[in-house]
Amino acid sequence: AHLVTLPGDGIGPEVTAAAVDVLKHVAAHHGHDFRFSEHAIGGAAIDATGAPLPDATRDACLAADAVLLGAVGGPKWSDPNAKVRPEQGLLALRAALGVFANLRPLKVHPRLAERSPLKTERLKDVDFVVVRELTGGAYFGAKTRDRDRATDECAYTVTEIERVLRRGFELASQRGRRLTSVDKANVLETSRLWRHTAEQVARDYPEVHLEHQLVDSMAMLMLTQPSRYDVIVTENLFGDILTDEAAALAGSLGLLPSASLGDSHGGLYEPIHGSAPDIAGRNAANPLGAIASAALLLRHALGLEAEAAVIEAAVEHVVAHGPWTRDLGGTASTTQVRDAVIAALD
Amino acid sequence: AHLVTLPGDGIGPEVTAAAVDVLKHVAAHHGHDFRFSEHAIGGAAIDATGAPLPDATRDACLAADAVLLGAVGGPKWSDPNAKVRPEQGLLALRAALGVFANLRPLKVHPRLAERSPLKTERLKDVDFVVVRELTGGAYFGAKTRDRDRATDECAYTVTEIERVLRRGFELASQRGRRLTSVDKANVLETSRLWRHTAEQVARDYPEVHLEHQLVDSMAMLMLTQPSRYDVIVTENLFGDILTDEAAALAGSLGLLPSASLGDSHGGLYEPIHGSAPDIAGRNAANPLGAIASAALLLRHALGLEAEAAVIEAAVEHVVAHGPWTRDLGGTASTTQVRDAVIAALD
Ligand SMILES: CC(C)[C@H](C(=O)O)[C@@H](O)C(=O)O
Ligand SMILES: CC(C)[C@H](C(=O)O)[C@@H](O)C(=O)O
Repeated sequence: AHLVTLPGDGIGPEVTAAAVDVLKHVAAHHGHDFRFSEHAIGGAAIDATGAPLPDATRDACLAADAVLLGAVGGPKWSDPNAKVRPEQGLLALRAALGVFANLRPLKVHPRLAERSPLKTERLKDVDFVVVRELTGGAYFGAKTRDRDRATDECAYTVTEIERVLRRGFELASQRGRRLTSVDKANVLETSRLWRHTAEQVARDYPEVHLEHQLVDSMAMLMLTQPSRYDVIVTENLFGDILTDEAAALAGSLGLLPSASLGDSHGGLYEPIHGSAPDIAGRNAANPLGAIASAALLLRHALGLEAEAAVIEAAVEHVVAHGPWTRDLGGTASTTQVRDAVIAALD
Repeated sequence: AHLVTLPGDGIGPEVTAAAVDVLKHVAAHHGHDFRFSEHAIGGAAIDATGAPLPDATRDACLAADAVLLGAVGGPKWSDPNAKVRPEQGLLALRAALGVFANLRPLKVHPRLAERSPLKTERLKDVDFVVVRELTGGAYFGAKTRDRDRATDECAYTVTEIERVLRRGFELASQRGRRLTSVDKANVLETSRLWRHTAEQVARDYPEVHLEHQLVDSMAMLMLTQPSRYDVIVTENLFGDILTDEAAALAGSLGLLPSASLGDSHGGLYEPIHGSAPDIAGRNAANPLGAIASAALLLRHALGLEAEAAVIEAAVEHVVAHGPWTRDLGGTASTTQVRDAVIAALD
């Protein structure tokens, strides 16, 4: 398999390198042939080429079986009025790959319960996946700006809504058979179309129980009843907000992986944490989110379920027994944590 | 002063009646003359007149010194595809009154800390106000819908952004002198205009420290560092989501008030809880949110700071010592809680 790595900015290169080391170890042990090629994205790409997603990067990603990304962005490129920004590279890549469904699984490891802002009893049994629509909505709609006024259009077609909901229903039918569709149907037309489409798609999945929630209620319920949810599906911007809220529950962002899936490409895999410029280059970042994202890559892009499960078990073991990086209350380095995961693989 | 009450749906009439009783008591004791007139809104108005905001209601509200609202909505009118919905009455009223700044103060009473989903140590010192823009954005933008596609436009002018930010800065300069402006400037044009305008307005308030946060980060920080915030200002839809998330921290929605303020009208005051149809008509709803909203009315619409403070102290007393309704772990009725507040006023 041909895998493209996009280390990006800040701690991106360090955590991506750790994940690649884990993948190489798994490949050697299980007799797979993974070829890796590294390309520039984000701020690093702006510095090198002027563009946040150089053509060479885009073409390599399109040709690859899957893409593993570190993180993009940082204070150096953070002026929101700048013409070229690192985030544009990520948004353009999502669009180019057609990865319309962003999956963010959330479980709270018992060892992290004490680090979560939520009370421990609320966290018991929390185990949900947010499926965020990733290539539509206000992110990609028409925009206007003059001196006195600005607009952003949120647009959705039935096709766009349907395909991401199908992903959610398929996932739910393999999991807890409950799907919560989140919208703001009491105010937005796009949400009314979303809700109507969810009702239609639900007919094809009679085994899954469909519930609708308004996004404001959901922001509340995620805190008061987090263990009630199984699969949560929502549009791009609501998903952006709700996944970060959900991530805060986990006790550390450093552990959380994500997979962005399309129809015709193996997908884009990245830890949900950012580029953390304050600790970049110090061998201090937690690589477990990137390593867990590599596990998702094996599962979803390459169909290597057993290998994915081996990595996930090794990550669990390290979360439970250490060594831990600072975000988990330890003093271990990125490479020490990587080595511990590799040791736990065997 | 002439006050219009809009009891609305579900528990709205019960909690509004309790708040009016408290206001009458305060008026008698402090020698004020409050005239009350009641009008229909929401589902009740749809049933009575076919319209969620009848002209008579709108005209009475426009002529009043302030408006006290209960709650709107309920399963009876909840089909999101219905032509006429209770929420439209509330949205139309906000627009008609020009109440562009929705203030939601959040403090967690020590007695409620144990009911909050957040760990008690995180709640220590939480004391912030969210100022939500209320008459612009995707709520009031152009919408389209055909069979296969829908759109919602989010639009903001500098004037709209500036006036709500000024409210925020003025509030911050009387409080902790920190203002957090929340946007999604890495993706949305309206957010870039918002951020630029915030920088401009900030020059007039050198005593206030301005910080920008992205809405996704804010959804996280509200959980991990809630005591860091003083005044949080944001656009309509982000505010809808973040204020509900914030409310979940408080341990019970039943206590939380809100004030919606404009330039030329005394404002609209309402508890943040909904119409709670499951307990409507049973004398079981917590009236403290409506009573606290009446206190905000006295402060903001009528300038009666001392009277507002007396009500707030009485509410605090009842929260601390009971009687409590079921949402606070007690068994008291709405009218028992009202009576306890009135007894604590003197
Ligand atoms: C960097 C930014 C554009 C991005 C988004 O808003 O999608 C990020 O917040 C994310 O969630 O992946
Ligand atoms: C009822 C609904 C239209 C309303 C809103 O979204 O503004 C409510 O959620 C609120 O926050 O007051």
